[in-house]
Amino acid sequence: MDLKSKIRDVPNFPKEGIIFKDITTLLQDPAAFNFTLKRLVELSENKGITKVVGIESRGFIFGAALAERLGVGFVPIRKPGKLPAAKESESYILEYGSDQIEIHKDALDKDDVVLLHDDLLATGGTMKAATTLVERLGAKIAQLSFVIELSFLHGRKLFDNYEVISLIQYDSE
Amino acid sequence: MDLKSKIRDVPNFPKEGIIFKDITTLLQDPAAFNFTLKRLVELSENKGITKVVGIESRGFIFGAALAERLGVGFVPIRKPGKLPAAKESESYILEYGSDQIEIHKDALDKDDVVLLHDDLLATGGTMKAATTLVERLGAKIAQLSFVIELSFLHGRKLFDNYEVISLIQYDSE
Repeated sequence: MDLKSKIRDVPNFPKEGIIFKDITTLLQDPAAFNFTLKRLVELSENKGITKVVGIESRGFIFGAALAERLGVGFVPIRKPGKLPAAKESESYILEYGSDQIEIHKDALDKDDVVLLHDDLLATGGTMKAATTLVERLGAKIAQLSFVIELSFLHGRKLFDNYEVISLIQYDSE
Repeated sequence: MDLKSKIRDVPNFPKEGIIFKDITTLLQDPAAFNFTLKRLVELSENKGITKVVGIESRGFIFGAALAERLGVGFVPIRKPGKLPAAKESESYILEYGSDQIEIHKDALDKDDVVLLHDDLLATGGTMKAATTLVERLGAKIAQLSFVIELSFLHGRKLFDNYEVISLIQYDSE
């Protein structure tokens, strides 16, 4: 299936000059949704994964379904102030200012082998902070998984020590 | 399975005097996660559902997995400014001030039969706004589905015209 044909280009979002890759058109197509999940599962099987960690909020969509298909637990990484129990936080730099993500301290331990999932790899800042959180809890990272990779931003370079997979790549804007 | 035993009570979150029902302990338990999804699917089968609509962001977790299991598309309802294409917005009242949710205009049409999902039913304000958005696009609503229902808040009263299902009910705080 040509998954790229299921992604909608939205010009000038979130700001002038950016072409946004909109995944909602893929999600609302049952065959495309199912094919995407099946491909992600195939690429994550037999790696000893014990938990899928998904990044709020689009990373929850395939992240949770992946966990269910792999028969493992799901752990959300969330924006500040959303998780109720004891947690670890990590900041990362944005184009203007910075942001933060959080994980529950008891969500993972040293016996966990993690698949970290988000829908899109751009410059990689959020995922980098997520890898820091997962490793701070003592867990191992088996794979970083994305539906879309904006290859022209070279975010993958931040993750030389990990297996990085993506289903759809864009070499230019 | 006693699903209630998988939910963690967190006192004084998000503020003093509130006991927060934390679903993350259920999510990270593969058997509980699978059982929850299976029960939700059983309660939604054979209703002619064509789309699952999930409310950002915890509603994405089981919402997307439900869509996949039912073999239908998934549609996200999101917080303001997150959806890139043409959209409908609806405001709702919070304890202090108000908030807004949005849906893509082309996400649903008059032939769609919708399962609307969120993780938790409290006073029902967000879900009420979600039903307004879905019906404004001309779609029918077959079911409102929740994992947890805080019955003592009587949110269900807002939805007399719909089938409302929940897996875990709390009759008092």
